[in-house]
Amino acid sequence: MSTPHSKENTATITALPKELELFQGCSPSFIKQLKQSASRSHHDKGHLIFVSDDEAHSLYIVISGWVKLFRETLDGTEAVIDVLNDNHFFGEHALFNNGVHEYSAETADKTVLLSIPLNLLKRELQQNPDLSFNFLKALAQKQHIKEREIEQRSIQSTAQRIGCFLLRLTKQDGKKSAQIHLPYDKTLIAARLGMQPETFSRALSKLKQSTNIEVRGSTVKIEDVEKLVNYTCSMCSHSFPCEDLEKDKA
Amino acid sequence: MSTPHSKENTATITALPKELELFQGCSPSFIKQLKQSASRSHHDKGHLIFVSDDEAHSLYIVISGWVKLFRETLDGTEAVIDVLNDNHFFGEHALFNNGVHEYSAETADKTVLLSIPLNLLKRELQQNPDLSFNFLKALAQKQHIKEREIEQRSIQSTAQRIGCFLLRLTKQDGKKSAQIHLPYDKTLIAARLGMQPETFSRALSKLKQSTNIEVRGSTVKIEDVEKLVNYTCSMCSHSFPCEDLEKDKA
Repeated sequence: MSTPHSKENTATITALPKELELFQGCSPSFIKQLKQSASRSHHDKGHLIFVSDDEAHSLYIVISGWVKLFRETLDGTEAVIDVLNDNHFFGEHALFNNGVHEYSAETADKTVLLSIPLNLLKRELQQNPDLSFNFLKALAQKQHIKEREIEQRSIQSTAQRIGCFLLRLTKQDGKKSAQIHLPYDKTLIAARLGMQPETFSRALSKLKQSTNIEVRGSTVKIEDVEKLVNYTCSMCSHSFPCEDLEKDKA
Repeated sequence: MSTPHSKENTATITALPKELELFQGCSPSFIKQLKQSASRSHHDKGHLIFVSDDEAHSLYIVISGWVKLFRETLDGTEAVIDVLNDNHFFGEHALFNNGVHEYSAETADKTVLLSIPLNLLKRELQQNPDLSFNFLKALAQKQHIKEREIEQRSIQSTAQRIGCFLLRLTKQDGKKSAQIHLPYDKTLIAARLGMQPETFSRALSKLKQSTNIEVRGSTVKIEDVEKLVNYTCSMCSHSFPCEDLEKDKA
C-alpha cells in the first residue's frame, strides 16, 4: 500500500534548503536532477506517509513539522521508534535492503516533507563517493544517537529520561532559567520515551518535585536549568550540552 | 589512551576470512594492501581494547569470541551498548567523526580480533563506491537492529526480552525442542538487556514458569520452542525467525 500525498505532490522545488548537508559536494548536474525530481508536500497531523513493508519509492526529509516512525505488533500494539523534526531524513533503509520500508511513518503535526526518488539516489550513491561519505556520516550519527538512547534506557530513571527530553529542547545558551514548548502531545512523548502514559505521569511528578520545573499545558518553565542538568545528566555518559545538538547548531 | 594487543600484533594475515562481506567487490590491489596492513590479535576475557574518547587507529572485526561495547557515567555506572560476536565490526564511528572512539570495548571471552587501519579504509571509502555501499548497507542494518531493540524495550516485558535473547541463540531449524549454551555470564546478559541483576533473576523465573524452559548453569533447555516463540514474539513487530539471523545464515 502506498498513500498519496495530500497537496503539491508533483511541484518542482526551485532551491534546495540550505541545511540539507546530505547533498554537499554533489555535482551541479546531480543537484539539477535532484531539483527536478524532488517534490515538496504539505500534510496535516495524522497523515500516514507510508506503512511498514510498503514498497519504497522515496527518501523523505522533514522541512518543518514532526514525523513519527513506528512499528506495530500483530495485535496492534504500537512502538514508537523515533519522532523527527527539521532536516532529519527517513525511509533510507529501503536503499540498502530489498526496497521496502522497515517502519511506518505518520505526521505528528502539520508537516512539510521533501521526497526524493530512491532510484536517483541509488544511482548517484553508486557513482559518487562524496555523497556516499555524507550518507555514511549521517548513518553513523543516527546509530550513535540510538546507542545513547539504549544507554539511557539501561541506566536512567524514567524521571531522568523525561528531564533529558526537556533539556534537549532547551536553548543551550547558559542562561539560568528557560521556558519551552512541548513539541507534541504528552501521549506521544511517553511513547517516544518507551513509557506507558501512567508511568510517564508518575515520572513527571517526580521530576517536578526534584527539579522545581513547572508544567502548564504544553509549556514547561525550568527555573533552574543547572538543577535539571545535575538531576538528569548525572546518569548519562555524555556531558551537557549534548554534542549532537551543538553540531546541529554549528 | 590506547591499549596494546596482547599477542601477534604485527602478524600479517595470509587470507581474509570468507565471511568478511564488507570488502566484497574491492579491487585486488586494495585487498593486497588490506592483507598487508590488517593484523590479528588474540585476547583473554577482560582485555580492554580501547576506551571511549581514545584516539582511534583501527576498525575491528570479531573473528571469534565476544566483545562488549559500553560507556560509563562520571560515577562509573556502566551501560552496555552491545555485545558482538563473529563477523561483526566495531570502532567504525571514528571514520566519520573527529577520529575518536565513541564507546569503550572489552573482550567478554577469549577473543580473536582483526584490526584494520582506519586511514587505509578512509582512503578507500573516498575512492570506491562499492566499499561505501557495503558500509552503508552494514550501517543501515546495525541501525535497524538498534531500532528493534528500542522497540522491544518499549513494549516487551523483561521476561519476553530474555525469551528473545534465548530464541536468537537457538538454531532456527523448526525442531520442537532445543538446547543452548549461554554465551557469556548472566550479569553481562542482564546488562546487555538493560536490566539490574535482580530484575533479570525475577524475569527469568517468570519466563521459566510461563514457558517451561530449564536453566542449569549456562545450559538452557527449551522443551517447546513454539511455546517460547508464542510467549516472546507476540510483543514484537518482527516475525520469527528473525530476518537478520536468516540473512546471516544465507
